[in-house]
Amino acid sequence: MGILYNQVADRIQALIREGVYREGDRLPGVRVLSRQFGVSVSTILQAHQTLEARGYLQARERSGYFVRRPARELPEPNMPRHRSRPVPVSAREMTLDLCADEQKRMVPLATAIPHPDFLPLRQIQQSTLWAARRGLETLDYAFPGKLEFRRQVAQRMAAIGVPVSPDEVLATNGAQEAIILALRAVTQPGDIVAVESPSFPGILQALEVVGLRVIEIPTHPSEGLSLEGLQVALEQWPLKACVVVTNHSNPMGARMPDARKRQLVSMLAAAGVPLIEDDIYGDLYYAGERPRPAKAFDQADNVIYCSSFSKTVSPGLRLGWMIPGRYMAGARQHKYFVNLATSTIPQLAVAHFLEQGGYDRYLRAARQHYRDASERLRAAVARAFPEGTAVSRPQGGFVLWVQLPDGVSGTEVFQRARAENINVAPGRMFSTTDKFENCLRLNAGNPWTATIENAVTRLGTLVQALAGR
Amino acid sequence: MGILYNQVADRIQALIREGVYREGDRLPGVRVLSRQFGVSVSTILQAHQTLEARGYLQARERSGYFVRRPARELPEPNMPRHRSRPVPVSAREMTLDLCADEQKRMVPLATAIPHPDFLPLRQIQQSTLWAARRGLETLDYAFPGKLEFRRQVAQRMAAIGVPVSPDEVLATNGAQEAIILALRAVTQPGDIVAVESPSFPGILQALEVVGLRVIEIPTHPSEGLSLEGLQVALEQWPLKACVVVTNHSNPMGARMPDARKRQLVSMLAAAGVPLIEDDIYGDLYYAGERPRPAKAFDQADNVIYCSSFSKTVSPGLRLGWMIPGRYMAGARQHKYFVNLATSTIPQLAVAHFLEQGGYDRYLRAARQHYRDASERLRAAVARAFPEGTAVSRPQGGFVLWVQLPDGVSGTEVFQRARAENINVAPGRMFSTTDKFENCLRLNAGNPWTATIENAVTRLGTLVQALAGR
Repeated sequence: MGILYNQVADRIQALIREGVYREGDRLPGVRVLSRQFGVSVSTILQAHQTLEARGYLQARERSGYFVRRPARELPEPNMPRHRSRPVPVSAREMTLDLCADEQKRMVPLATAIPHPDFLPLRQIQQSTLWAARRGLETLDYAFPGKLEFRRQVAQRMAAIGVPVSPDEVLATNGAQEAIILALRAVTQPGDIVAVESPSFPGILQALEVVGLRVIEIPTHPSEGLSLEGLQVALEQWPLKACVVVTNHSNPMGARMPDARKRQLVSMLAAAGVPLIEDDIYGDLYYAGERPRPAKAFDQADNVIYCSSFSKTVSPGLRLGWMIPGRYMAGARQHKYFVNLATSTIPQLAVAHFLEQGGYDRYLRAARQHYRDASERLRAAVARAFPEGTAVSRPQGGFVLWVQLPDGVSGTEVFQRARAENINVAPGRMFSTTDKFENCLRLNAGNPWTATIENAVTRLGTLVQALAGR
Repeated sequence: MGILYNQVADRIQALIREGVYREGDRLPGVRVLSRQFGVSVSTILQAHQTLEARGYLQARERSGYFVRRPARELPEPNMPRHRSRPVPVSAREMTLDLCADEQKRMVPLATAIPHPDFLPLRQIQQSTLWAARRGLETLDYAFPGKLEFRRQVAQRMAAIGVPVSPDEVLATNGAQEAIILALRAVTQPGDIVAVESPSFPGILQALEVVGLRVIEIPTHPSEGLSLEGLQVALEQWPLKACVVVTNHSNPMGARMPDARKRQLVSMLAAAGVPLIEDDIYGDLYYAGERPRPAKAFDQADNVIYCSSFSKTVSPGLRLGWMIPGRYMAGARQHKYFVNLATSTIPQLAVAHFLEQGGYDRYLRAARQHYRDASERLRAAVARAFPEGTAVSRPQGGFVLWVQLPDGVSGTEVFQRARAENINVAPGRMFSTTDKFENCLRLNAGNPWTATIENAVTRLGTLVQALAGR
């Protein structure tokens, strides 16, 4: 159902891009379009709303829908071309600041936390009530994870091309802990680990916790980690692991095509370097089929798969999982050492929710939300930001990566925006060495409101002022 | 109420110890004793049951209660007299093995996990249902902890002599995580940290996670850490922290008297070495007042207080807290880096339970349970184990430390017992350097059943056989 109106919206959008409808044109009436596309009037109305969200249409009261071609289609950010040397990871405090309590009152464009409106509140509440009533069972340590939870996870893993038994699943406090356990299982302090660049700050923090050195590999804004860059690093340095967000990476939104995933997996297996895969955004794809994780191409048992329900069910649960493969013994032991087990009730609740079967239905709606929200934010950025701005075209998830015109400092934008109660993530957070100084990450995972729209306009003005200096 | 029958039991026990009643004597009838002690018949009956639990009385059907003086009063274990050198902590796998799923089918004398019968199941279930109904609030990251939870914790801290504001409380995944965060806040990998000897294995694991070296300080079975031993270590080594379970330590059950706590705090403050205090058993004292933590004597803001609800509400919640004092910034940052936040629903549930006021009532009953259970287990050990055995006299908590006759290996007892489906904790787990080879730790936190009684008898026979070789 969500799929049909979306297809119609895509076709109308193509007509606009091709110039069949131009800026200011009034779109044919809904009844005409309904006949033209062979769909119901209500589907046309949904398609209109979608295109309005994406910035291609504007409703005028009593007059119908008018084409508003987004100011311009912004280019994608450049692929960084740097060549890095390993450096220790330390003192990454800015992220902490971004998520502190006092920030919660600002316009929330900084963090990659899903808005409660896009989460399955009713379902997870009912499942938590069910879990709480389990009584005795809730009191026990759930190490290495409640069987019901691990069984449901195993079913989902099988559906994305990774058939595992429940015994191969380890429950964790979110994907962040899973990545740390994976790093502990395959590295020693001081070892060198390759990551994407720009990189999710949590991964840099995980490296800091384990005492590792990082080498940053350039990442293409839509195809992901540069395999050529990785090859050079493998030849130059004794890498002990490589951490990659394979699907809809944060902050770029890149998705590695299957062919590149295969190549990544075989390159690393040949080099004897374990791949730690973070697939936390995998379920939030915008179109087509659920992309496979690299783990699905892992013949050599060299990929440690990590994920979480923090982006799709509830961040407050703190519930993730990992498939450590042959590194299970090490990962299990470290899990036990750091906090014995993951809280029992969240595991029972999520297992119940998954078993009830509402999860996929919820995901369909959430994917549509995030797709619309990120299109809308891209359109708003295109209208508000000056010439020289580039913006990512994510294929899933809910963050945008904005490259500012030459010479504009994202850190300065960040500071000036905070003075006006607008919270954004400055590009330097996404690297250990202050690369991406002229970038910002924006969170698209909010319902669209005048407050958000005004904040984006205001950001554009700030950038314009800085660009004009 | 629980207090009165306990006082009566203590007085009858004193009469038995003093020889007023001797082995085999029939105790006066309940009505006589009721008049004698000026209490109700039902109080006398409760006192009888308590003394039966402690091994001082035996009920014979239709004949009344007969004195069964425990075979003998076993001596306390020796205070270890070793002098240690710092060693790295590594490869502590045996503990993991003890708690693995497959162990749950064995007679559970190994782990220090409270039995569900002694936990407030109904209350925590109702509070969890209440928490689940909070809806939106449950979805959010609770960093650095839900305010309601931190406020309730602050109230309890004030009641034990540590007045703090909710802002000074950090929610953690149990005390284990709190200890790790504390260690991270005050040490660098490779640093030397002093611990008790024998030591709670979780503390040794925490040191391993952070990459520290340990120096073991002899611990007196009832008075706790040797301050003289600590003084020597402070003079000899550049200690960066000292970790102590100040009240009812695991495995010895020792409680540092207030005067020694004061001395410990001032010694460490003078030396500029932070004290990391684990007070997880503090609420489970057997008699008198709730012992104060060392933190109550901390004038110099040099004590990091750690605790948890795992022994008193539910291990499955994985909910603890810490008062890091001036180390808050470091502890907060590390918490954020390792897993962002502690699960929200357990925090809301415990806050609700504490606010309802049933917690202290529950604790009164639990303390009585554990006191009876440990007395009963001590009596059973005294009957079953051979000459040369010594056993701790804990003042709280629910573990016993058993020192076997010279030359008997606790590891061998552990292995033979496992072959018979009885799970105990061998003494070597409680040290990095295989000290305490002739010791066992037994979990007294189970309801008394024929299975447990037979297991203890069987353990005695195994020890006897090994002692006779």
